[in-house]
Amino acid sequence: MSKIRTALKVDVNTPAAKQPYLHNRWHPDVPFCGKIHNNETVKIECLDWTGGQIGNNDSADDVLNVDLTKVHYLSGPFEIEGAEPGDVLCVEIQDVQPFEDQPWGFSGVFHRENGGGFLDEIYPNAAKAIWDFEGIHCTSRHIPGVKFAGLIHPGILGCAPSAEILAEWNRREAELISEKAADGKTTRTVANPPLTTNTHAGAADEATAAKIAAEGARTVPGRPEHGGNCDIKNLSRGSKVYLPVHVPGAKFSVGDLHFSQGDGEISFCGAIEMAGVITVKCTVMKDGQKQLGMVNGKSPIFIPGPVQPQFGPGRMLYFEGFSVDENGKQHFLDATVAYRQSCLRIIEYLKRYGYDDYQIYLLLSAAPVEGHIAGIVDIPNACTTIGLPMDIFEIDIRPETPAKKLDMARAPVSVK
Amino acid sequence: MSKIRTALKVDVNTPAAKQPYLHNRWHPDVPFCGKIHNNETVKIECLDWTGGQIGNNDSADDVLNVDLTKVHYLSGPFEIEGAEPGDVLCVEIQDVQPFEDQPWGFSGVFHRENGGGFLDEIYPNAAKAIWDFEGIHCTSRHIPGVKFAGLIHPGILGCAPSAEILAEWNRREAELISEKAADGKTTRTVANPPLTTNTHAGAADEATAAKIAAEGARTVPGRPEHGGNCDIKNLSRGSKVYLPVHVPGAKFSVGDLHFSQGDGEISFCGAIEMAGVITVKCTVMKDGQKQLGMVNGKSPIFIPGPVQPQFGPGRMLYFEGFSVDENGKQHFLDATVAYRQSCLRIIEYLKRYGYDDYQIYLLLSAAPVEGHIAGIVDIPNACTTIGLPMDIFEIDIRPETPAKKLDMARAPVSVK
Amino acid sequence: MSKIRTALKVDVNTPAAKQPYLHNRWHPDVPFCGKIHNNETVKIECLDWTGGQIGNNDSADDVLNVDLTKVHYLSGPFEIEGAEPGDVLCVEIQDVQPFEDQPWGFSGVFHRENGGGFLDEIYPNAAKAIWDFEGIHCTSRHIPGVKFAGLIHPGILGCAPSAEILAEWNRREAELISEKAADGKTTRTVANPPLTTNTHAGAADEATAAKIAAEGARTVPGRPEHGGNCDIKNLSRGSKVYLPVHVPGAKFSVGDLHFSQGDGEISFCGAIEMAGVITVKCTVMKDGQKQLGMVNGKSPIFIPGPVQPQFGPGRMLYFEGFSVDENGKQHFLDATVAYRQSCLRIIEYLKRYGYDDYQIYLLLSAAPVEGHIAGIVDIPNACTTIGLPMDIFEIDIRPETPAKKLDMARAPVSVK
Amino acid sequence: MSKIRTALKVDVNTPAAKQPYLHNRWHPDVPFCGKIHNNETVKIECLDWTGGQIGNNDSADDVLNVDLTKVHYLSGPFEIEGAEPGDVLCVEIQDVQPFEDQPWGFSGVFHRENGGGFLDEIYPNAAKAIWDFEGIHCTSRHIPGVKFAGLIHPGILGCAPSAEILAEWNRREAELISEKAADGKTTRTVANPPLTTNTHAGAADEATAAKIAAEGARTVPGRPEHGGNCDIKNLSRGSKVYLPVHVPGAKFSVGDLHFSQGDGEISFCGAIEMAGVITVKCTVMKDGQKQLGMVNGKSPIFIPGPVQPQFGPGRMLYFEGFSVDENGKQHFLDATVAYRQSCLRIIEYLKRYGYDDYQIYLLLSAAPVEGHIAGIVDIPNACTTIGLPMDIFEIDIRPETPAKKLDMARAPVSVK
Repeated sequence: MSKIRTALKVDVNTPAAKQPYLHNRWHPDVPFCGKIHNNETVKIECLDWTGGQIGNNDSADDVLNVDLTKVHYLSGPFEIEGAEPGDVLCVEIQDVQPFEDQPWGFSGVFHRENGGGFLDEIYPNAAKAIWDFEGIHCTSRHIPGVKFAGLIHPGILGCAPSAEILAEWNRREAELISEKAADGKTTRTVANPPLTTNTHAGAADEATAAKIAAEGARTVPGRPEHGGNCDIKNLSRGSKVYLPVHVPGAKFSVGDLHFSQGDGEISFCGAIEMAGVITVKCTVMKDGQKQLGMVNGKSPIFIPGPVQPQFGPGRMLYFEGFSVDENGKQHFLDATVAYRQSCLRIIEYLKRYGYDDYQIYLLLSAAPVEGHIAGIVDIPNACTTIGLPMDIFEIDIRPETPAKKLDMARAPVSVK
Repeated sequence: MSKIRTALKVDVNTPAAKQPYLHNRWHPDVPFCGKIHNNETVKIECLDWTGGQIGNNDSADDVLNVDLTKVHYLSGPFEIEGAEPGDVLCVEIQDVQPFEDQPWGFSGVFHRENGGGFLDEIYPNAAKAIWDFEGIHCTSRHIPGVKFAGLIHPGILGCAPSAEILAEWNRREAELISEKAADGKTTRTVANPPLTTNTHAGAADEATAAKIAAEGARTVPGRPEHGGNCDIKNLSRGSKVYLPVHVPGAKFSVGDLHFSQGDGEISFCGAIEMAGVITVKCTVMKDGQKQLGMVNGKSPIFIPGPVQPQFGPGRMLYFEGFSVDENGKQHFLDATVAYRQSCLRIIEYLKRYGYDDYQIYLLLSAAPVEGHIAGIVDIPNACTTIGLPMDIFEIDIRPETPAKKLDMARAPVSVK
Repeated sequence: MSKIRTALKVDVNTPAAKQPYLHNRWHPDVPFCGKIHNNETVKIECLDWTGGQIGNNDSADDVLNVDLTKVHYLSGPFEIEGAEPGDVLCVEIQDVQPFEDQPWGFSGVFHRENGGGFLDEIYPNAAKAIWDFEGIHCTSRHIPGVKFAGLIHPGILGCAPSAEILAEWNRREAELISEKAADGKTTRTVANPPLTTNTHAGAADEATAAKIAAEGARTVPGRPEHGGNCDIKNLSRGSKVYLPVHVPGAKFSVGDLHFSQGDGEISFCGAIEMAGVITVKCTVMKDGQKQLGMVNGKSPIFIPGPVQPQFGPGRMLYFEGFSVDENGKQHFLDATVAYRQSCLRIIEYLKRYGYDDYQIYLLLSAAPVEGHIAGIVDIPNACTTIGLPMDIFEIDIRPETPAKKLDMARAPVSVK
Repeated sequence: MSKIRTALKVDVNTPAAKQPYLHNRWHPDVPFCGKIHNNETVKIECLDWTGGQIGNNDSADDVLNVDLTKVHYLSGPFEIEGAEPGDVLCVEIQDVQPFEDQPWGFSGVFHRENGGGFLDEIYPNAAKAIWDFEGIHCTSRHIPGVKFAGLIHPGILGCAPSAEILAEWNRREAELISEKAADGKTTRTVANPPLTTNTHAGAADEATAAKIAAEGARTVPGRPEHGGNCDIKNLSRGSKVYLPVHVPGAKFSVGDLHFSQGDGEISFCGAIEMAGVITVKCTVMKDGQKQLGMVNGKSPIFIPGPVQPQFGPGRMLYFEGFSVDENGKQHFLDATVAYRQSCLRIIEYLKRYGYDDYQIYLLLSAAPVEGHIAGIVDIPNACTTIGLPMDIFEIDIRPETPAKKLDMARAPVSVK
C-alpha cells in the first residue's frame, strides 16, 4: 500500500479568502475543488474555524474582536465519484491530527455582543484558553490541574444542499427571523440570513460567486438535511458517518477540526479549535437514503469509533438540571433551559476548588463532558444531566472529599 | 452481618390509597412512615407507578383508560436520623429487584387525551408492551427480536420540600399555566396544579390531609430543588445520589421502579414499569449543600454504579436531530424539538425491519438508548443525537447490511 | 410470565452428605436429581464450597482445620431434556444471588499442609477474610479501605463425563502422580486420585455409590472435556456458556458460587465463597460440538454478560511478572512462575499502605484483578501482568501519590 | 508550545548495523546516543524489529530465511537528565505512529528451525500476513474479512542493566541452558547466551564493542529487572510505564513498534511489526524504586491509556484451555500449556468459516485478543481463557449462528 494521497493542502499563512479550495457558504454552485474516487482514502487539510484569527497568547482580545464574517471556512467541495442525489455518502473518519508544527488549540468564550454563547446572559465577556497537545492528551496553562485525552473530530462535515433544499433553509430561517421581529420578545439574534460580506465561494466565477453570496447558507448552523456543523464530539477516529447526497458528485466538504469538545460545545467557540488534517475514506451507498429510511433526505446517522476515551461510569459525576431557569421561571419541557441549569450547577461545584466561572465555562465546552436528556415527558419539567469525568482532574473532586480552594491561575478575559 | 432490614412492605393486592405508608403528593406535612438510621441499609418495597392498574395481557385498554389521579405512589416519607435542612442525604442504591413472584413489567404509550407522550401529536393512540424478566435481561412478546439487560433503577427519589420551596413550586407552575391560558397558543396541558381528587397523604390526619390535598405538589414532574421524578436511567445498582434536605428528618421517599428506560422515557409511561424492592444505604452529609456548591438547595448530583451494561461505542448507531420540527418549522436552539426529530428518525430506520411505529415508540422508551445534547449554540439549530445499541437486536441492523422486512408481530394498540 | 421454578433447594443447616441432590464426584453414574426442560429457566440453590465449614467470625482456625474431603459439593446432576452426547448445552446464567438471610461470604488462605495455595511456599499459614455484601458491593472488616462490586458467578459448572472420558482423566492424572513419585523433585501433591473417604454419590444406591467412590473424579480441578471447576470470574450475570454433553440427559451440575474472584483465584479458597441461588436457562444445541469446532469434545466456550463492573483502563495499575522465580532461578517460558512474580510485586506495592502480606494475598484472590498473559514466546521469559483496579481502594494508590502507612487492621491468621 | 523535538531519526534504507544510534544488546557500556531532559517530550524513530528484512509482498520466503542475528535493534540508549540508580523513569507514551509513507506492517510465523513460535510443533512452517493501515484501523489481504483498530505500542522499552544485573542475567540463563543440556529432555533452544555475531554496540569504540559483544544480553527476552521486550499490548497511546533505573543517566532505549498485538504474541513475530515514531515524555521519580515497592529493582509497572478499543464484554467469545496438552498428557498447573490449548481451540473454531490454520495462527498473534489466567490453583489443572472480539469479523461468528465456509484466500506459507 502506498502513502495516502493528500487531496487538499491549506496554507495557514495565507488569508482563507485567497485559498480557492476553501469556502464558507453552503450552496450547490460552489465549484468542485477536486475529486475523490469511490472507496478512496484521502487526507484533507483544514484551517482552524477562525481561519487563524486567534493566537497562542495570554489575552482574550482576539476572541473579543474576532471577525465572525470570516469563520467556518470549509475544505471542499469534493466531487465524489459516482454519487447522485438519493445516495448516501459513507465517510469513515480514519484519523484526525493537528499539524505537527502547531501542537496547540484554543477554546473561546465569545462576547455577548459578538457571537455570544450558551451562558452569555450571565457571562457576557470574552475569554480564552490555550491548550497544548501532548500526543493524545492536552493541558492548558489557563486551566491548571486538568488533563484529558482528546476525542478528536471534525465539527463540520456534509454534502451540499440542492437548490430546493437551500431554498427551504432560507425560507424557514427567514420565517424565524421575521417571527422574532414580530413578537419582539427577545433582542437575541435568532438566525442569520445570507450575507454577502466576506462570502467565500471557492473557485466560483464572479457571477456565480454573486449568486452564492446572495443565497448561500451560512456554515455556522447544522441542518437536518445534511448535518453540517453538527458539532458531535463522538465523530472521532474510526467513526463512520452516513451523509445524504443531494447534488450530483455530492460536493462533500469538511472543516472546523476539534481536538476535543464537550456535549453542547456551550461557549460556541468552545471546542479545542485547531488546524490540521483529516483522513477519510469515502464510499457511495447507491440509493442509500431509501435503504436507510432517510425520509426527505433526513438526517445523517453515524457509528462512533471504538477508541473513545473510557471513563468507568463510577468515575463520572452527574449534575441534574430542570427546565426552571436561573430566574425561577418555569418553562414547559424545555431541554435547552434544563441543560443550562446543569451547566450552572457544575460551575458552582467546581468554583469550590479555586477555578473561576470563565475557566469552568471554557472547560465545560472543551472537555469530554457527557450531556444527556434524562426525562422529557413529566410536565412541566424536562430533566437533563451532564456527566463530568472525575479522572480529568489532578485533584480528587469526589463529593465525599472536602473541597479545598487552590490557586488555579486564571484564563484571560476581555471586557468590551 | 445480619439480614438487611425491610423498612417498608407494600401489598400489591390492596389499593394504594389504603396503604398508609404510601403517598402521592410532595408536602412537608406528610407524616413519617418510619425511620432510617444514619448509615443504615434498608430494603423498601414499592408499587409499580400505576398502583397495579396495568395487567399482563395483550390489550392496551387498561393503558387507554388508566386513572392518572391514582399514580406515582411513593413509599415513605422516611425520617432519616440526624438530617436537617442544609444537609445532603447520600443515598447509595445497593440493589433494585422486581418481586420474585412478579417477574414482568410493562411499557405504555398513553393516549393523547389521557396523559399523552413525547410524540402524541403523531401517535395519539394508547399502546402497551409487556416485558418478561430473565435474570438481568428482558424480552417482550410484543416486540420480538429484542433482548437487553435492564439498567434497573427508581424513577423517583427525593426529600420533601420545605413549605417555602413548595410555595415556590406552586407559584411558578401556576404562572406557567396562566401564561399559557393568556397566549392561547397551545391546547396542551402545560402543568398540573394541586388536585384534591385522590390525594393520598399517607398517614395524615384529616385536617392535615386536607391541607396536603390543597397544596401538595404532584409527584409526576421532577423539580430542581429535590430531584423527585427525574427518571434518570443511570441511577442503577451501585450508584450514589446526593439529595438536598429541606425539612428536619429529610422525609425521604422513593418509588416508580423501572427495570429499564431509554433516555427521555419518551412515551411517558415508557420505562419498563414494575413493582419491587430497592435496597438503599442512607448517609447524612452535614451542611452538605454548602459543601457541594448546591446554591439555593439545587440540585441533586449523582455518580452512576460501575455495572452499567456495556456496549462498545462501535456498536452504537446514532441518529441526529435538529430543531426543525416535523412540519418544517424552524425553532430557535430548541433541544426538545431536536430530540423529537432524533426519535422520528429512528422510527423510520427500524420500520424497515417490520416493526411498526408504536412498537418502536415503545422500544425507544424502554431500551437503554443514549440521548445526547450534541451542539446547542449554533443558531438557530440545536443538534441532539440518540444512540441505539445494535446489540439488543437479534437481527443485524448495521447500515451496510440490507434491511429485510420480517414478521415482527404487533404491540396492542387501543383507539378511543 | 409466572415465577421461575426452583429446581433444587438446599438446606444450609443439614450436612451436605445427607442431602441426596448434592454430590462431590464427577461420574456418569451419579443418578439424576431432577429434570430441566429444554429452554427452561430454573433456580438452583447451592451450598458454599466448604459445605458450611467456615464461620463468620474473626479466627482462621476453621480454615486451618478445614476437612478437604468434604468440599466442592455440587447441585445436580440434572437431566436436560433432549440432550445427547455430541450436543452442546448452552447455559445462560441469568442471575446469581447470595441467600437473602446470609449476606456475607469468606475468602481463605489454606495452610500449606492442608490445601495450600499459589504462594504457600512464602505464606504457609492459614488466613481468612469475611466479606459483607451491600447489594452489588462488598467490604471486609479484615481488609479495610476496600470496596468493590462483585462479579458474581459459579466457580463450577459442567456436564458429567462419559465412562471413557472419566477413564482418560484417571489415566492421565495417575500418570502425573507416578511421574512425580519417580523423579522425586517435589514434595507437593500434584494431583488427587479417586478417594473413597467422604465420597458423596448423590442418590446412588450402595453398589453404584461404591463404584463412584472408586472411580469418580474429584470436583476440585477443572478439566478440558467439560469445564468443571474452571473458576472463571467472568461467568457472571448475563453470560452464556457452551458445555459439551457426553452422556444422555447431560447430567448438568453447578456449585461453588463466588460473589467475586480475581483472575487465578490464587489463594485456592480465594474467591468470596458463598451459598446462594443461581438462575439458569438451559438450551440444547443439537450436534453442537461439531458445529462449534469442539474437537474430541473440547472445550467449553463462553460469552460474558454485558454488566461487568467497568474500570476505565486509565484506572488500572498493572504489575509485570517474568518467569524468573523468587529465588532467582530462570524458568523456560513458564507463565505460572511469571504470574507468581506479578502477585509478589503487588504485595510489595500494597504493603506500603499498611496492609500486611496475608491481607493482600486474600485481596488478590477475591477482588476483580485482571490476570493477563502478555508475551509467551521470547525465550526464556514469559511475561504476565496483573491489573489492579485502583478504584476499589478508598485511598489514592496512584504511583505518583506518595504512599502513607495507615492502620489497616489485620486479617485473622492461624499457625499450625 | 513549539513542535516536539525529534531526538532520534532512523534511516529505513541504511542497514541497521551502520546506524550508530541503534543497538541490539543490553549492556551498561553502550554509549549514550543523545540526551533527554527531565520532563521533556521527544519523538524517537524506530526501525521495525527485523531491521527491514521483511517485504510487502505475497511470499513468506523472507520470513523463512530471516537472519535472527540482525533483529531487535533498539533506538537509544538515551541519557535521561538526573536519573540515578534507585530512581524510576516514568515514560508517558504520548503517541505511536507508523511512518507516513509506510502505512503497512507484517506478522510472521517463524519456521520451527529458524525462530519458531508458540505452536511450532504443530505448525512448523513459515507464514506471513501483510497489514494495511487505514488510520487507526488495519486490514490484511492475506486474512480477509477482518478489520480492527490497532492498539499501537512499543514491544520493547527499558533502561540498561547495571553490570551486576547483567551478570545475574547471564548467570541464570546459562544455568537454564546447562540444565537443559544435562537432562536432555528437549531439543528446543531454551535461552540464548551472548553472541558476538552481528552484535551492534551502538557508537561504542572497538574495545568496548568487543566487551559488549561478549557479555551483552540479547534484546529478545523481557527481563524482570527492567522490562525490555515485555510485548505488552496495552502500553499504547496515553499509557504510563514506570521503569527502574540501574545506571547513571538511565540509558533508556525503545524499539520494536507494533501496530497491534494479541496477548501472548504467539507466533513470536506475531504482532503487526512496523517502523515508525514514538512520542514519549520522560520524568524522573527520585528514589522511585523504594517509593513504589520495587524490591531488588523489580519490576516495571504501568497504567494503560484511556483509549483502548472498546468491545462490550457481551461481544467477546472466550475459549477455555487447561493444562492437558494436545497429546493428552497432564501437566501440573502449567498456564503455558493451558494457553496453548486455548489457542488450538480457537483455530478449530475459526476454521469452520474457511480460514486455514496459519491464517488463524497469524490472526491470534496480531489481533487484540485477551489472554487471561483464570484459575491457577486447582491441582493439577491451570485454566486459561482467550477472548476473541467478535466485532473484528465482518461475518457473524456468534456460536448460535451456523457457520458457513467461505473463500478466505490464504496467507503465504513457506516450507523448508
